[in-house]
Amino acid sequence: MSFSPLIRQLIDSLRVLPGVGQKTAQRMALHLLERERPGGLKLAEALEKALHGVGYCKRCRTLSELDECQLCSDPRRDDSLLCVVQSPTDVWAVEQTGFRGRYFVLKGHLSPLDGLGPDAIGIPQLEARISEGQFSEVILATNPTVEGEATAHYIAQLLLPQGLAVSRIAHGVPLGGELELVDGGTLAHALAGRKSMAGH
Amino acid sequence: MSFSPLIRQLIDSLRVLPGVGQKTAQRMALHLLERERPGGLKLAEALEKALHGVGYCKRCRTLSELDECQLCSDPRRDDSLLCVVQSPTDVWAVEQTGFRGRYFVLKGHLSPLDGLGPDAIGIPQLEARISEGQFSEVILATNPTVEGEATAHYIAQLLLPQGLAVSRIAHGVPLGGELELVDGGTLAHALAGRKSMAGH
Repeated sequence: MSFSPLIRQLIDSLRVLPGVGQKTAQRMALHLLERERPGGLKLAEALEKALHGVGYCKRCRTLSELDECQLCSDPRRDDSLLCVVQSPTDVWAVEQTGFRGRYFVLKGHLSPLDGLGPDAIGIPQLEARISEGQFSEVILATNPTVEGEATAHYIAQLLLPQGLAVSRIAHGVPLGGELELVDGGTLAHALAGRKSMAGH
Repeated sequence: MSFSPLIRQLIDSLRVLPGVGQKTAQRMALHLLERERPGGLKLAEALEKALHGVGYCKRCRTLSELDECQLCSDPRRDDSLLCVVQSPTDVWAVEQTGFRGRYFVLKGHLSPLDGLGPDAIGIPQLEARISEGQFSEVILATNPTVEGEATAHYIAQLLLPQGLAVSRIAHGVPLGGELELVDGGTLAHALAGRKSMAGH
């Protein structure tokens, strides 16, 4: 033992951050104390403001300090498209692609073994959101993992009987890199989903 | 753009942490907001307390909220040994070895090109500390880098004429791993510093 109590508390508290273990927390604490006190105080203030101020948008359920987030209240967006994602970060990722429809954010994916059924991840709210809008298509952009696929499948089964167009983001080879580095499952999807180049 | 202002400020503020870029800061912010609000608030409090409360020990210059740190005020430690290190983390590292003497923490290493001379890294305070104590040996535990070696050399030249025993931590092969992975400079040091095994 050699750190004083306040430093020890700071190190312990930093470990709440994802991917930060004892060594990294130590390095962060000493960096802040030795070289970044103003930045550290700004961080403390930003944390307090965000953690007290940020809630969930009542329409799309993304994180926002507004009752209705900027994306939901923007009148210029396409009201016919709804993109369903698993987390607020995914909204940001899809937004980068130039998508300009609406979003709905689930609370993660279905995980029966962890007791996370449709109610826990917000399926009832998704249905309510869909019934209040006039969407012509619902795009399921859950993660390309087993759980994400299962969640997408579940939602599709729920919405298709209601006469909605439901689509799933495409699986295939990512841009860049080499084919031999792509895993077999992805390559199989890419082959099965091949597109005609006629007219290109 | 899709994060609300408070979330954006939190992400920007997290980037003050060493090794944290935009993507990691995003992941940290959303993790705290979605899953760790109590931990995040505790972190904000710990930051504020530590950054306002922690200063430098007046004797060894390590980080501490006390005027004189716990190590300096502990009467059970060996007053004949002084270990000189480059940063407060190094005190912690040396402490793990079972060393139970006193410490002195420099503010980094000599770096004439950056304008960091003896005064900037605290050499006058080191001399004052040595003159007020009764050390029989000063152990130089600066980093085994070019700058750390130069700093150790400078201090040795300063203290040796005063009749003090001055030593440098040993260079050699680290424990574990394989010899073929050790760099040439280290291996050369290990050979030159070989020890007789007679009497083992």
